[in-house]
Amino acid sequence: MHLFRLDTSIRPDGSVSRELADVAESEWRAEHPDGMVTRRDLGADPLPVTAWMDAVGAASVAPEARTGPQASAAVLVAALADEVLAADAYLIATQLYNFGVPAHLKTWIDLLIADPRLGPGAGQPLAGRPALLVIARGGAYGPGTPREGWDHSTPWVSRILADNFGLGLHLAEAELTLAGVNPALDAFREIGAESRRAAHEAATAHGRTLARPRRLTLSARGGTEAST
Amino acid sequence: MHLFRLDTSIRPDGSVSRELADVAESEWRAEHPDGMVTRRDLGADPLPVTAWMDAVGAASVAPEARTGPQASAAVLVAALADEVLAADAYLIATQLYNFGVPAHLKTWIDLLIADPRLGPGAGQPLAGRPALLVIARGGAYGPGTPREGWDHSTPWVSRILADNFGLGLHLAEAELTLAGVNPALDAFREIGAESRRAAHEAATAHGRTLARPRRLTLSARGGTEAST
Repeated sequence: MHLFRLDTSIRPDGSVSRELADVAESEWRAEHPDGMVTRRDLGADPLPVTAWMDAVGAASVAPEARTGPQASAAVLVAALADEVLAADAYLIATQLYNFGVPAHLKTWIDLLIADPRLGPGAGQPLAGRPALLVIARGGAYGPGTPREGWDHSTPWVSRILADNFGLGLHLAEAELTLAGVNPALDAFREIGAESRRAAHEAATAHGRTLARPRRLTLSARGGTEAST
Repeated sequence: MHLFRLDTSIRPDGSVSRELADVAESEWRAEHPDGMVTRRDLGADPLPVTAWMDAVGAASVAPEARTGPQASAAVLVAALADEVLAADAYLIATQLYNFGVPAHLKTWIDLLIADPRLGPGAGQPLAGRPALLVIARGGAYGPGTPREGWDHSTPWVSRILADNFGLGLHLAEAELTLAGVNPALDAFREIGAESRRAAHEAATAHGRTLARPRRLTLSARGGTEAST
């Protein structure tokens, strides 16, 4: 078994998304002590957006006509896609930055989609594989909050993972992670603590889901059935 | 009068967003032949996401304790914010890449918000200034289309420009710009051409809006009134 883990927090320490991903990864490792975990840390080692621009350029010219940067970008794209194609379960830990997706997460996805094996014409080679999306949000964005609807990260990331790549998506979401850090949010410390507890539970449960994916099989009646 | 124009297309030629922004800019220039236009082209000269990471780091240490990259990032952030603060009207031309915001546009916004004058504690120094958001979309994303709801770029960009910065936002949107380019969209060429015509009209009209902003004044009754 082979788990791919991605982190995007720019904080090496004190990151709630990393903490939750650690929980899920531990559950997975408990089930597969000899399994392989491939990690990519975009917070520590972001990929340059120029690589994506060069990769798009590389796709429109013959391999022998590529510039040096285009050739390098094509190699990077293939390596990133290899990493993802080789895994059978996915753990993606991210957050909101300025109410949107981390730019470095966007670039990583763009680079994956630049690979012909994962691009628009490829079908969905990852379809049905399980994925856990861990999201940490500093504030509150739910119904009735002043910033309801301001989480523009989760919808896009979910769209790409579930609808575009066809992964079987599960979520572990922690809100108000800045309560206790930002004094303006002091009144929400207990709600934030409760949200983090619930996120830990979800990370634990779905860490196991990643380890023991339900296998989707075509049923005799032509529908789709799930068996554990 | 001072117009700030931003482009994010990675295509120097054949870009619909650039074409529409040219229309709006021409209208603005016709009104202000001696006005100043500041242009920033993120498609040609993207800013590195590492600069944003360094800028966030720089904000948490004393100026004299900054690393070299942190000091450089702080200088870049101030220069980008200066550019935006100096203008009195904004023309932002962008698009969807992989159903989301261009990573290089996200990084530019992140860098602006890293400046204390435009960050969370700054109030809204740009409030009420007019902005035109030009968006080009290769496919169709409206109600009833198979990809309804897949445009995750416009909502976030609008959120930041209108709600976060408080700009007076206008839109010029062209859809199905790949009809006539991608053979799979051949059936939609006429709809695409009509969308582009409508976008030209909107760019023309709102180019004038940028040139002659309505001024918002407090009324005697305490409400807000607009006068041209």
